[in-house]
Amino acid sequence: MKRKYLMTPGPSPVPAFVRESLSREIMHHRTDEFREILQHAHEGLKYVFCTKNPVLIFSSSGTGAMEATVSSLFSPGDKVISIAGGKFGQRWTELAKAYQLDVVEMTIDWGNAPDPERLKSLLEQHAAVKGVLTTLCETSTGTVYDVEALAKTARKAGALIVVDAVSGLGQDKLPTDEWGVDAVVSGSQKGLMLPPGLAFVSVNANAQTAMKNAQCSRYYLNLQKALASYAKSDTPFTPAVSLVVGLKEALRTMQEERMESRWVRFETMAAATRKAAQALGLKLFSSRPSASLTAIRAPEGIKSTDIVRTLRKNYGISIAAGQGDVKEKIFRIAHMGWINEQDLMMTFSLLEKVLRSLGHTFENGVSLACLQEVLYGK
Amino acid sequence: MKRKYLMTPGPSPVPAFVRESLSREIMHHRTDEFREILQHAHEGLKYVFCTKNPVLIFSSSGTGAMEATVSSLFSPGDKVISIAGGKFGQRWTELAKAYQLDVVEMTIDWGNAPDPERLKSLLEQHAAVKGVLTTLCETSTGTVYDVEALAKTARKAGALIVVDAVSGLGQDKLPTDEWGVDAVVSGSQKGLMLPPGLAFVSVNANAQTAMKNAQCSRYYLNLQKALASYAKSDTPFTPAVSLVVGLKEALRTMQEERMESRWVRFETMAAATRKAAQALGLKLFSSRPSASLTAIRAPEGIKSTDIVRTLRKNYGISIAAGQGDVKEKIFRIAHMGWINEQDLMMTFSLLEKVLRSLGHTFENGVSLACLQEVLYGK
Repeated sequence: MKRKYLMTPGPSPVPAFVRESLSREIMHHRTDEFREILQHAHEGLKYVFCTKNPVLIFSSSGTGAMEATVSSLFSPGDKVISIAGGKFGQRWTELAKAYQLDVVEMTIDWGNAPDPERLKSLLEQHAAVKGVLTTLCETSTGTVYDVEALAKTARKAGALIVVDAVSGLGQDKLPTDEWGVDAVVSGSQKGLMLPPGLAFVSVNANAQTAMKNAQCSRYYLNLQKALASYAKSDTPFTPAVSLVVGLKEALRTMQEERMESRWVRFETMAAATRKAAQALGLKLFSSRPSASLTAIRAPEGIKSTDIVRTLRKNYGISIAAGQGDVKEKIFRIAHMGWINEQDLMMTFSLLEKVLRSLGHTFENGVSLACLQEVLYGK
Repeated sequence: MKRKYLMTPGPSPVPAFVRESLSREIMHHRTDEFREILQHAHEGLKYVFCTKNPVLIFSSSGTGAMEATVSSLFSPGDKVISIAGGKFGQRWTELAKAYQLDVVEMTIDWGNAPDPERLKSLLEQHAAVKGVLTTLCETSTGTVYDVEALAKTARKAGALIVVDAVSGLGQDKLPTDEWGVDAVVSGSQKGLMLPPGLAFVSVNANAQTAMKNAQCSRYYLNLQKALASYAKSDTPFTPAVSLVVGLKEALRTMQEERMESRWVRFETMAAATRKAAQALGLKLFSSRPSASLTAIRAPEGIKSTDIVRTLRKNYGISIAAGQGDVKEKIFRIAHMGWINEQDLMMTFSLLEKVLRSLGHTFENGVSLACLQEVLYGK
């Protein structure tokens, strides 16, 4: 009878109305029926990505779509700046190196956000930088980057800006066209409330031009092939049909709520989470915390992995420990996609119990009072 | 109230017990619970692939897994022979060229199977061929290749043999280890009775050695990364969790039926389909027809696309027209995965009506009598 609660930054919970749609009878993908669903999904994606440009669908995880941008926008030897302040920034660096790009690594201490001034001087220092690879929300540290300023800086230097918004999209503000982001990557299993298995890339005119000249080896993860099919409301390869059916359903609720409302609602949930953690005497890990998840330092002398394990084992609540060097030092609570205010209340009600059982002391219920105040008003 | 019937060679129907599993609550992929499901899936895949070697899972369509073998087993400039007797053989050629391999094209007329003697002389003619890329069942023509003989010939010449079994696996006999096939590729949406979105690659010791030296650019579709994670019952990137849950369910029924029984059952369905088509005065397209689907020539003066359209529009039955040059000349009826004897009976009962409406003449019910005789005995 133990219920399970998914509070991890991906996969995140899939609502029942989406799960139901996944179990419908399968349809052939070269039919008017499926084409209509795909068209709805394309329109919904444009809305959620805040762009008038095509958003291409790949049947892969988010990393597959990141790879598609590297291999389809650049050529071996092209100079790119990879901004790495966590595990997913490092992935940009690894991907760019895998395709023999000439990578300038802009490394940031985990938990910090990149300084646009530093990007500016790097761009002045290195001639002919073709692209800047960066992140909206760095999932490993719970940090949101100032994409608006980074995009502006890159654009001034004539470099493409490519943003990994796999975990941030839907919660952290990203008006793609307004901020002039050339390509935005996302995945299905976070803000978009689907199981993992689909990934997305928006491509503006600059990105579409870059594609025509790119020389990296590619086939399945090819933006150009995907764009050519997109124009015909089709996909170049058999798509993950059931997930696309679910996508249409998930996008509809996001369109109904409106992005502006979502950004405010999730930022409020994030603010409440931060305040609740601090009320427990805990420190935040990020200097520029995201609206999608909150990274919290474990108390001195307690391993975050013990907190995570106990919450999951005793109460069925899954949150995430850290990654890399901070694996045992931080824990991460997601507020993204289908996760709501009551889920945070439920999580902290038992996080308090677990922290106390591991020897951390604080006033009983103090985090819940904070959450109530921020989330529901006085 | 019109019911729909999917008789296409992929996507093919997904049974209700698999569809139900797709709608379960999502679980995190780095948990013991998911790891156990993955282990079951790994064991089931080994059984279905008839191998003791690892079968790696990719979240992609079948083409993604084909690409993984090209980019992970070979290096730019490596000489490979690509056997192309249809659309999917051509895909091998395209993939190998996309990765700058030195491709020797062994082209075959559509509808025919490759002659192993011709492969032998090509291997004698070209020095240092690193690999032979071929197909079990060429879906575009309904032809099954003599993989046993092709593998023997390749092995003698010291070349790796890589087989696309996307549509054939589960129906057309393929004892991978016994025949010495180095890598077998398949996908989820055909014999394996799942929606599209997962793909698989078996890798024997030769393939595992080749991976270590391969120099093509790759990241997401990387056999080596997948193999390293496989050893830990894990995946290198977030997998399509719901599809893996469904995979476990689908594999269990295949294990219960046993592969030997399946090969006989589907070959019987294929033989019945061929006999039924011939009884209607129609000609088969393939000289070596597959157990997975049957390609039938449309009668003189009737376009196959009209047959396909009328069946779908009037009766909800989806079969497939041809591809490429034979688009309007052939139609293809699948007998794979969850499709059974009664589905064939249902299809031919209305195919007769449609053919008659388009002006083709034959004795009423003649194909049904053939099917009954072959499928159910006299």
